[in-house]
This record gives sequence, structure tokens and C-alpha cells, in this order.
Amino acid sequence: MAKKAKEEKGQKTVASKLPQKDRAENCRVGVVGSGSFATAIVKMLVENCSVVHWCVRSEYVKGAIAQRGHNPTYLTSVSFNLAQLSLTTDINEVVSECDIIVLATPSIYLASAMEQLTCTYEGKVFLSAIKGIVPEHNDIVAHYLKDKFNIGFRCQGVIAGPCHAEEVGMERLSYLTIACAEEVLSQKLDVLFTSSFIKVNHSRDILGNEYSAILKNVYAIGAGIASGLGYGDNFTAVLVSNAIREMELFLEAVYEVPRDVNESAYLGDLLVTAYSLFSRNRSLGNLVGKGYTVKSAIQSMNMVAEGYYAADSIYLTAKEKNLSTPIIDTIYGILYEEKSPEKQFRKLTSKLT
Amino acid sequence: MAKKAKEEKGQKTVASKLPQKDRAENCRVGVVGSGSFATAIVKMLVENCSVVHWCVRSEYVKGAIAQRGHNPTYLTSVSFNLAQLSLTTDINEVVSECDIIVLATPSIYLASAMEQLTCTYEGKVFLSAIKGIVPEHNDIVAHYLKDKFNIGFRCQGVIAGPCHAEEVGMERLSYLTIACAEEVLSQKLDVLFTSSFIKVNHSRDILGNEYSAILKNVYAIGAGIASGLGYGDNFTAVLVSNAIREMELFLEAVYEVPRDVNESAYLGDLLVTAYSLFSRNRSLGNLVGKGYTVKSAIQSMNMVAEGYYAADSIYLTAKEKNLSTPIIDTIYGILYEEKSPEKQFRKLTSKLT
Repeated sequence: MAKKAKEEKGQKTVASKLPQKDRAENCRVGVVGSGSFATAIVKMLVENCSVVHWCVRSEYVKGAIAQRGHNPTYLTSVSFNLAQLSLTTDINEVVSECDIIVLATPSIYLASAMEQLTCTYEGKVFLSAIKGIVPEHNDIVAHYLKDKFNIGFRCQGVIAGPCHAEEVGMERLSYLTIACAEEVLSQKLDVLFTSSFIKVNHSRDILGNEYSAILKNVYAIGAGIASGLGYGDNFTAVLVSNAIREMELFLEAVYEVPRDVNESAYLGDLLVTAYSLFSRNRSLGNLVGKGYTVKSAIQSMNMVAEGYYAADSIYLTAKEKNLSTPIIDTIYGILYEEKSPEKQFRKLTSKLT
Repeated sequence: MAKKAKEEKGQKTVASKLPQKDRAENCRVGVVGSGSFATAIVKMLVENCSVVHWCVRSEYVKGAIAQRGHNPTYLTSVSFNLAQLSLTTDINEVVSECDIIVLATPSIYLASAMEQLTCTYEGKVFLSAIKGIVPEHNDIVAHYLKDKFNIGFRCQGVIAGPCHAEEVGMERLSYLTIACAEEVLSQKLDVLFTSSFIKVNHSRDILGNEYSAILKNVYAIGAGIASGLGYGDNFTAVLVSNAIREMELFLEAVYEVPRDVNESAYLGDLLVTAYSLFSRNRSLGNLVGKGYTVKSAIQSMNMVAEGYYAADSIYLTAKEKNLSTPIIDTIYGILYEEKSPEKQFRKLTSKLT
């Protein structure tokens, strides 16, 4: 599996003689969402594009950015040159102005944003930077866009990590993996995103990248619960090494293509989420492990922990496919069936290897 | 590869009707070494054995343990019941008294300990808990024991992690992987080591487990250098996900058997070493990344960072086998060729994916 995937890679180099800035100018690009990852994506894009169209959540956010030059709530230390931003609260403005639209809302707000869409969007490319399940559709973003909006996989892409927004804000070197169906689009996206602090890997595994980005949030909740319960680094390492094997099994069941789950978009993204203090999913799990009820842990957080909403749907998919997923089952039981974290993890320890 | 390895597992259950304590009594077991991991191993064994033979480094250490009931330098908070310890400084006493001998010195002290051996040791089992290269032999422990002492692989085994000694000292749940050639020995070792805080996985991949335990120390130095240089969590995740792929390549080249490098002994051990603050190899790298010379960084540490001594030999093996190992090459250049960590890592970033 690993070898095949390696052979199929190697399309990284983009052959063009125009300077990057000029090539980026040929793309009209917009971002929908104003959370931390949306803000990080705008920061990446303004490195290469003279104008980025940005559809934010509310008139308040729009006004605050226009006035202060930064997002009032997320990545507040990232300053924008306002001449480079075309701000709006209307998704139709962004979609009609742009060829490439990055969707970067929390998954629970995507449907309400997309339902505002009245303009034509044929041939436009939608990239999802969302790492969660669309609750109204109970499915991943790629399926939601295809089923509800007839946006085919040739007009879709996925932006995967490992990429904590906070570190992008600080211009710390980060690697994105962008998955899309065709080489021409890959090249365009490479030009749009590559900068002094962003390197881009390319993939054709749209669904695998999206599922793994969702799964890693669920596993990060598990790593947080373990930490909250007092398990140490030795155990966390075992948990994560079991999680990547469970993820491989899950990905093979939902979308079987040659892939090496040890590539950055899969394993790397799991690691950054399971180990980093920036991870909100890990933080949620940590509170639950320490004894907070799930409800109070969610309420105490200022940001959406995607893994909570995803765990339900991921668990059901695993059951449908008849997969052995002890870690997912354990987390689901704790989050949705009020089972004791302590008891569930004690049971889990005998299932790990 | 992953699937084959999974099929070949499943020998975990030990079928015996005697209680664990009674079965453990049938084994006479000894430990050579008095560093932190040796002390942790003695702690594991006294859970199941009424007596553990322990060959420590010096009369001072022997006297201190006999007087205070704990190792004077490492894992000082771990108290032993002295009635369970048979202390000596003579390796011959341990080897002649025991059927199973755990070698747990730092790799640089192994040869001087083994050279004291004058008693017969035919049919005795030597388990290596050492994660480094024997400098006098410029090779791994398994080869050293075979070449110099004619101890065949049927009389050898490897104890692998992820298992920081410090957490064993605190009785935090940890998983060992014990690799040996035969099922009967696997069963014995399971009985000796399994306890309320230790779970045991079994493997037949003696050489792979030994090499990976060594490699992970080298990679942990790399993770430390990155951190010292100011790279963040996003980059570390990419580095580690590249490291496990590089490790897979290396292991396939030196010993090709079916294995899944995402099992705990390989990936888990890499994670605990690359991410944990307990890791001395990571700490060494961190100092070097912050600008200490390699020499002064080594001097400032109270413990041996095995990865430093291993990097040289691992690098040469990779070159002999004609492998593409950019991370190993980078670390070697910094540690042994006085190359600038900053420049070497900048070059490395363009080789990672």
C-alpha cells in the first residue's frame, strides 16, 4: 500500500515560467468563514494574491476587520492590509466574483451559509477546509456539496493539515496537503498557497483526506480524555499508534485507493491534533477526562470542537461497515451515552496493542 | 505489508492454568545495569518474582540500594523490598544464577560489562533493553551478542517501548513489546513482565525492534533540534510523519520481514521519544537547536543520549544500503560534521512532504 502510494506521487513540481505572484493573479479566490482557520487561510492567500474576497459571518466581524485590520475574535494578532481584502457577508458576492472558493466555516454553520447561495456556480471550484460532518446532511462536506449542490469531484478539493491556524498566524513553517482530482487545478492551488511559511503537498485522495481530517479530531478527544484521566506519555503513544491503524482500516472501508497513512496529511495531522496544546478537540477531551460533564466542557470552550459533532456520525459509519474500531466506540460511548470515561478507558486498554 | 503483519500476530494469549506468580517463580531472572531503564525493569520484575538478581555498576550503587532501598541516582522515588533483590556487581553471579538475563546498561558500557563474563552461559536467554549501538563492535546488540559470544537468535530477545522509565516508576500504564524467536519464550516473558501497570505485546521481529528503538533516538534528536530552532508543532508533525516513513525504508533494507511500522513498538516508541519531555535525546537536540555546541550540550546532560552515539553508525548503514534518508543525513551532519543546525534544517524542509 505504502509503496504504491509513493509511486503515484511526485507531481509536486509546478512547471511555469511566470513568477508566482503573476500566476496567482490569474486566480480570483475567496474564503467563506471567519473562524481561526478561515483567517489563517486568508493570511496565506494575501501572500500571493493582490485581492482576497472574504465572506465573514456577520456585519460586526466585517466592520471590525475593516476598522482594525484584524479579525476581532480569532488570530487577532494577524494584521491585514485592507487594500487586499474585499469583505462581505454575502456568500453570493464571493462565489460570483471568484473561480476558487475556500469553504472554512465550522461544519455546523456550512449549510446555513450555502443555503444563501442564489448565484450560478457552475465550473467554480470549491475547496473544503472544514474538518467535520455537516449535521443537516449527516455526511462529509464532499458528499454534501455533491448531493445538495451537484458540485462534482472535479470541481472540489480538500485542504488538509497538519496545520494549526495559530502557528500560521505566527508564520511558523507549515505544510498543507491539497487534494483535488486534476493536475491543472493542483498547479493553480500550489501557486496560490505556497509562500515563505507554507509548503504544499498534493494528493488525489479527496475523500480520504476529508475523512482523516475528521477522524483525527475524534482521536484527539480520546488523547485528551486519556490525559485528563492521568494516563501518561507512554500510554498516549500506544493510543495514537493504535488510532492511526484504526484510521487506516476506516479509510480503506469508506474509500479504497492506494494511500500511505503515514503521509503528513493523515498521520501528521493526527499528531498535531493529538499532541498539541493548540488543539481544541484535545482540550475538550481533557476536561471530560478530568470529570467535567460533556455539556459543561463544551460550554466552557470558546470554539467549536469539531470532533464532538463528528464522533456520532463516524461511529455509525464504522458500525455500518462492520469495522473493529475500539477507540471510536470508546469515545462515542463517553460523549453520547454518558458512559464513565474511567471505566471505558480501562476497558479500552485491554483492546490496544 | 500492514495486513500481512496483522495476520501473523495474535499469539498474545498465554494458556496456562497456574497463577501468574507461580509461573513467574519458575524463571530465575536477572538484570544487568543500574540506569533509569534498568531500574524500571527491576521494578516491573519484582511485581511477579520473589527474587530478582541485579548486577549494578559499582559497589557504591550496590551499597546505596542495600542501605536506602532505592537507586541513589535514577528513579530515586522507586522503593524496593530488599528481600526481593539479590544485588551484585559481578555479571557472572547474575548469569550463573539466572535463566533469563536482561541487559540494560547504556550501550557504551555493554562491552565492558560483557567482557567480565567467565561463567558458562549456554542455553541462557539474553534480552536486550538497550537502545543503541555497541561502539566497540560498531553494530547493534543482537549482532554483538551473536558475533562475540555466539549467542544465537533463539537465545535472544529485545524489550521495546514505548516505555519511558520515569512513567514506569510512577506505575503509569505502559505497553512493552517483547521480541523473541519462539512462542514458549514469549509465554515465559509475558508472565514475568505483565502486571497492573505493564501490558506486553509480542513480536518475532528481533532485529526490526532493535533497529527501530535505535532509530527513534536519532529522530528524537531531530525533533529536539527543530524545537530548539523555533519550529512549531505543525512542522514537528511533518518531521515525525516523514521519520516513520524513513524508518520503514531503513528497516526493510536491513531486515525484510512483514511488519507494520504503525505498531506500538515502532511508531509508538518514536512518538513517546520525539514528543515527551522525559526524552533525553529530544533534550539534547533542543540544546543543539538553541545554539549550544554538540559537545557542551552532551556535557550539560546527566544521562547518556543514545541517539548521539547511534547517529554515526546508522548514517553509515543508510549510505551502505544506498537509502534516501534526508532526516538521518541532516542530524548526522549537525552532530558529526559541525554543520549549522539552522542551515541544515532549512535544506531539510524542502525534502520533506
